[in-house]
Amino acid sequence: MAIAFLTITPLGTGTPSVSRFVAGVEEILRGTSLNHQLTAMGTIIEGDLDAILAVVRRMHEAPFQEGAVRVSTLVKIDDRRDKEHTIAGKMRSVEEKLR
Amino acid sequence: MAIAFLTITPLGTGTPSVSRFVAGVEEILRGTSLNHQLTAMGTIIEGDLDAILAVVRRMHEAPFQEGAVRVSTLVKIDDRRDKEHTIAGKMRSVEEKLR
Amino acid sequence: MAIAFLTITPLGTGTPSVSRFVAGVEEILRGTSLNHQLTAMGTIIEGDLDAILAVVRRMHEAPFQEGAVRVSTLVKIDDRRDKEHTIAGKMRSVEEKLR
Amino acid sequence: MAIAFLTITPLGTGTPSVSRFVAGVEEILRGTSLNHQLTAMGTIIEGDLDAILAVVRRMHEAPFQEGAVRVSTLVKIDDRRDKEHTIAGKMRSVEEKLR
Repeated sequence: MAIAFLTITPLGTGTPSVSRFVAGVEEILRGTSLNHQLTAMGTIIEGDLDAILAVVRRMHEAPFQEGAVRVSTLVKIDDRRDKEHTIAGKMRSVEEKLR
Repeated sequence: MAIAFLTITPLGTGTPSVSRFVAGVEEILRGTSLNHQLTAMGTIIEGDLDAILAVVRRMHEAPFQEGAVRVSTLVKIDDRRDKEHTIAGKMRSVEEKLR
Repeated sequence: MAIAFLTITPLGTGTPSVSRFVAGVEEILRGTSLNHQLTAMGTIIEGDLDAILAVVRRMHEAPFQEGAVRVSTLVKIDDRRDKEHTIAGKMRSVEEKLR
Repeated sequence: MAIAFLTITPLGTGTPSVSRFVAGVEEILRGTSLNHQLTAMGTIIEGDLDAILAVVRRMHEAPFQEGAVRVSTLVKIDDRRDKEHTIAGKMRSVEEKLR
């Protein structure tokens, strides 16, 4: 199981607002069974790495279908294989040390 | 007001677990008045850009003080000046379009 | 044609040196026909986006095969479809404006 | 000595071309004594971390002065303190292992 952080940004759209595009991208992710979390700076996705990359590829395509001609996508993958690796587990692990 | 996404990762620590370092870094942020949110893939910070960069600089230093000799820090800044720009506002803007 | 910037970092390897892993990852890329450029902070790859993502997936796997149990991979994709989009063209475009 | 990779991207400019802004940002860096390298995907800067962050702060401001109202800046810092850490040294270290 891997965890990925993802931002997808259309460039040159004529408006600094990108929430319309973010919503279109998020809807693709909601159509999958991947556990995910929307944040103010990007989307966190948990699951099999190949499944994550397949949906990232489709999400990256979405702004082009809505008229963008240039898209900047950032993906940060955290892939750990010596123990179970989940969004909830990572949060718990830090929070225990913060108490 | 800017919003930043931040990850701070020590390299070569001998263990793949970094939550101890993440907790140390997070404690520095909690000692400030900056609004922030811890996620499974990084920390989101909202506020004046100079205040954010000053605390990022201190957070980056923390793993060295705990013994790390190499630290990889990623900062993504989203700085928007034509309207109020907050973590809550960005979330609301996307969520309205998702309904 | 897309252009991607890629870093692949093993965590918890016991040494802050990661050049051995970087070299292993780079060799996979050299075995493809994708135009690419190694820099001090990551590798730049140019080509069809699906071809890029397929090799990124294989490159991400390499450190695990050499003993790493956790790998952090960062991919930044710049995909522009209104004109030819190459490493050389982007460099030329900036350099013309710098003269 | 730290090494940083930097991209500065204006959003909502009405054109997908950003080379004009990239050139403006690069000129600020050329006015400093910091060793740096322009690549097709971002700029690599080498030097004292505080000096790097000070110039990054000025570079981030440049697109606003040319009319942008939203700027997305990505900074990846590689800070290693157990040995001399330079752009040239990192390249050499990987290239030796590639032979």
